Amino acid sequence: MMASSPSGVSAPPTVRGLARARLDGRVVLVRISRGQATVLATESEHPAADVLREALHTGAWRADGDDAGGVTVPVGDLELLAPVANPSKILCVGLNYLDHADESGVQAPAKPLLFAKFPNALRADGAVVEVPKDLSAELDYEGELAVVIGRRASDVSRDEALDHVLGYVAANDLSARDAQFSDGQWLRGKSADGFCPVGPVVVLAEDVEDPQALRITTRLNDQVVQDGTTADMIFSVAEIISFASRYLTLEPGDLILTGTPPGVGFVRKPPLLIRDGDVVTVTVEGVGGVANQVRVV
Amino acid sequence: MMASSPSGVSAPPTVRGLARARLDGRVVLVRISRGQATVLATESEHPAADVLREALHTGAWRADGDDAGGVTVPVGDLELLAPVANPSKILCVGLNYLDHADESGVQAPAKPLLFAKFPNALRADGAVVEVPKDLSAELDYEGELAVVIGRRASDVSRDEALDHVLGYVAANDLSARDAQFSDGQWLRGKSADGFCPVGPVVVLAEDVEDPQALRITTRLNDQVVQDGTTADMIFSVAEIISFASRYLTLEPGDLILTGTPPGVGFVRKPPLLIRDGDVVTVTVEGVGGVANQVRVV
Repeated sequence: MMASSPSGVSAPPTVRGLARARLDGRVVLVRISRGQATVLATESEHPAADVLREALHTGAWRADGDDAGGVTVPVGDLELLAPVANPSKILCVGLNYLDHADESGVQAPAKPLLFAKFPNALRADGAVVEVPKDLSAELDYEGELAVVIGRRASDVSRDEALDHVLGYVAANDLSARDAQFSDGQWLRGKSADGFCPVGPVVVLAEDVEDPQALRITTRLNDQVVQDGTTADMIFSVAEIISFASRYLTLEPGDLILTGTPPGVGFVRKPPLLIRDGDVVTVTVEGVGGVANQVRVV
Repeated sequence: MMASSPSGVSAPPTVRGLARARLDGRVVLVRISRGQATVLATESEHPAADVLREALHTGAWRADGDDAGGVTVPVGDLELLAPVANPSKILCVGLNYLDHADESGVQAPAKPLLFAKFPNALRADGAVVEVPKDLSAELDYEGELAVVIGRRASDVSRDEALDHVLGYVAANDLSARDAQFSDGQWLRGKSADGFCPVGPVVVLAEDVEDPQALRITTRLNDQVVQDGTTADMIFSVAEIISFASRYLTLEPGDLILTGTPPGVGFVRKPPLLIRDGDVVTVTVEGVGGVANQVRVV
């Protein structure tokens, strides 16, 4: 049902949403529905080019195909890219599932625990994540629901929070445990190049009935290693957005990774770490899957 | 000699460099020299607009005034803005001065300790930093030398590192100590809106003889609270760039804050914290000063 191949996307025909994609040498924003992709906008030449963020700025993401003058092609003709390329921020929430905090041997936080990734970490569904061989001896996976912000949010209440969500994607919060824990600060272990695969498409908020009732499954090759539900989040998507927006203004196109359920590799006995050639697939119910082969180079 | 007023910039006529500025309702990149500013480029309408980053992309930053067709005006006619607005990343180095690690009661790190801020934190020299009154009860200053990356850097050696530097600015790594330490992860306490004043202009690398021989002075109102030198960095600018670039590709326009010398407020007995109306001025020798009033609103 969901993407499971490292070599490309297999978005199910029933998933509707927005995607960045390469088509005839251009990068475009498309609306995907029933296996067809309608071109809504073309990515700029700006150094922070990101056609999703640009279309949120101009409103082009709301256009229907006719307005956009865009062609419609079968999804199979596209090379899907990461749905966002240059967000102003990738905000991540640590230890947001009680059983994951427990397995990590730490107390669940009293407030959403925020940390960062940068755009260099983004990769598409199907992309190979290349990790230099001396970078880490403890590569781990974390399957997560990620939120794409659609409207600027500054100090918004919990009740208003979800109005600022464009939609949802699946994400893999790849982690170099050695760097993460030897630093104490998680940035280096969490934001190396390629450490944030996301995809396959942004499923619009209107098509996700309840973001707190989605199954999250992570597979390491063919083994199911995480099988959780967003119902078990300590802080809901709305609580995270409201809390974070008191400190940091959220911008259209920003990505929020909402934390991982239990089952990560480093706490297992023996540890189950990612090895050269392994494929990690994160699937979020109704949202889709992001599958990536990790190559140690 | 350096900027010391919260109400605006007083860049010394002897400082040469690049600045973002508002002029006649446009945002422009200017080259400043001998008190005159020559317009090199105009900022785009892109959602991640940043005329410095754009000019690094097009090469316009190298143009001389005639090439750019730009007018020349007295520096006093400009409203200087933060030199960068939408970098792909703001990388910070923690505990990079031995005496600051000591005063903080922690061991100096064995490797550059990386953490993050996001673009929402950037503010110009002279801007008022507004902090919501319930956000923090422990606001602190950290004066730092910051580096602006000029060329993409991925896994560069220490010897090559400085070739990737465009120039230098002064920065204030504002910190909400309560949020910083209660989270353990520093992002929330370090990246609130306005927590990264930088300025006043990017002094080009060619005009800084030795980045490891610069005096850094921080004033809280009229009191000198930090008086250090970049000679005391544990990891040099070149070492930081080389190390970080093994993990994260550095992009043109990226900012690196290189750590603070001793004298921060929270370790003093009694603590010396920032109060409503205080002005913090960070001055880096030969680079300039960034002065900001903090208002608790």
